[in-house]
Amino acid sequence: MGRKRDIEDEALLAAARAVFVKKGFSATTREIAARARISEAVIYQRHPTKADLFFAAMVPPDLDVDALFAPPRTRASGRASLESLALGIMEYFRKLVPVFLPLLNHPSFDFATFAHGRPDSPFGRLQRGLHERLDRLARDGVLSAAHLTGAALGLFSSLHFLAIVEKLHRHRIDDDAVRSIVRAFWDGLAPRVKRRGRGRHPAAHQRKRPG
Amino acid sequence: MGRKRDIEDEALLAAARAVFVKKGFSATTREIAARARISEAVIYQRHPTKADLFFAAMVPPDLDVDALFAPPRTRASGRASLESLALGIMEYFRKLVPVFLPLLNHPSFDFATFAHGRPDSPFGRLQRGLHERLDRLARDGVLSAAHLTGAALGLFSSLHFLAIVEKLHRHRIDDDAVRSIVRAFWDGLAPRVKRRGRGRHPAAHQRKRPG
Repeated sequence: MGRKRDIEDEALLAAARAVFVKKGFSATTREIAARARISEAVIYQRHPTKADLFFAAMVPPDLDVDALFAPPRTRASGRASLESLALGIMEYFRKLVPVFLPLLNHPSFDFATFAHGRPDSPFGRLQRGLHERLDRLARDGVLSAAHLTGAALGLFSSLHFLAIVEKLHRHRIDDDAVRSIVRAFWDGLAPRVKRRGRGRHPAAHQRKRPG
Repeated sequence: MGRKRDIEDEALLAAARAVFVKKGFSATTREIAARARISEAVIYQRHPTKADLFFAAMVPPDLDVDALFAPPRTRASGRASLESLALGIMEYFRKLVPVFLPLLNHPSFDFATFAHGRPDSPFGRLQRGLHERLDRLARDGVLSAAHLTGAALGLFSSLHFLAIVEKLHRHRIDDDAVRSIVRAFWDGLAPRVKRRGRGRHPAAHQRKRPG
């Protein structure tokens, strides 16, 4: 019986999530009950208020941090590593945003709790994982260590926003747009010396004149 | 009489905006009527549905693009120009986000219309203005022209997301966090030759070894 009840709870939360993702918090428990094929009374037995049901249902999708931030098996350049990292994060945000958007608009939604409250929250793990991965790349010498915090913050926040835009536009943002951000971060905007060659210690380099 | 009616319309929209910003679309026309000190009947005479009232009220705040993207009067370095540009954009997003957040959660909100539909939309003007300003800096030789699109997209989207986080956290994000993103964009992440000196054509430069 306990197991059956667990399955029913999970089915109710999945139904609620589907309805809230589609219609936001203004969706009715009547619609959710219809989708879950139970009565509204059963919903309120398990979740005293619609807000309780909402916050129980709208949990961020699970994140496989180890897979996302694992170093590539084959040796890749720093820029290629960053690009595949960014595309992987973007894929996660694509799953997160449909849940995140209705959540962030709820008056009693607390971002700090969502992001950091639970030590194993996917959101927090994503931020830490990204920072650790950049740090690792810097220690391996394929990335400058000077701006890891700014780069992690910039990448994380710009990709998250792009996933929001994508959801609102109902149109997938091209991987090249993600890569264009990574490349701007990679090469930098300062008009300055450009190295030649692909090794870590280029023997030849040339100064690129601005303009 | 026409003028009085205009003022009343504007007062109603301001009251509706204040209530929707605070409570989202689930706010009732009853609350809005109370705030505007009119009857609900008057609201529905002017706006057939709550959604009509919502979209009429939730317009992006005005943006002084010329002031935001004017070149600085004193000669500033490329990085300093970018930093003040980013902080200015952040200030605008701080005004935009309280209106934008409830909007983007409405099921029939169309981002494309909001962003680009009206040719003079502040959102579109901001994107164009940022791109033109970066382009100008590149033509002036203080910025590399290689990654303007990626940099504009990355700056715009990361700052917009930070303003969303700030609103949700109810806590102002430090200017240094904004600067850290600009600096990562400026110097780049590639471990490579670092120039010395401040001029555009540095005579001396030194390769920075990774690690």
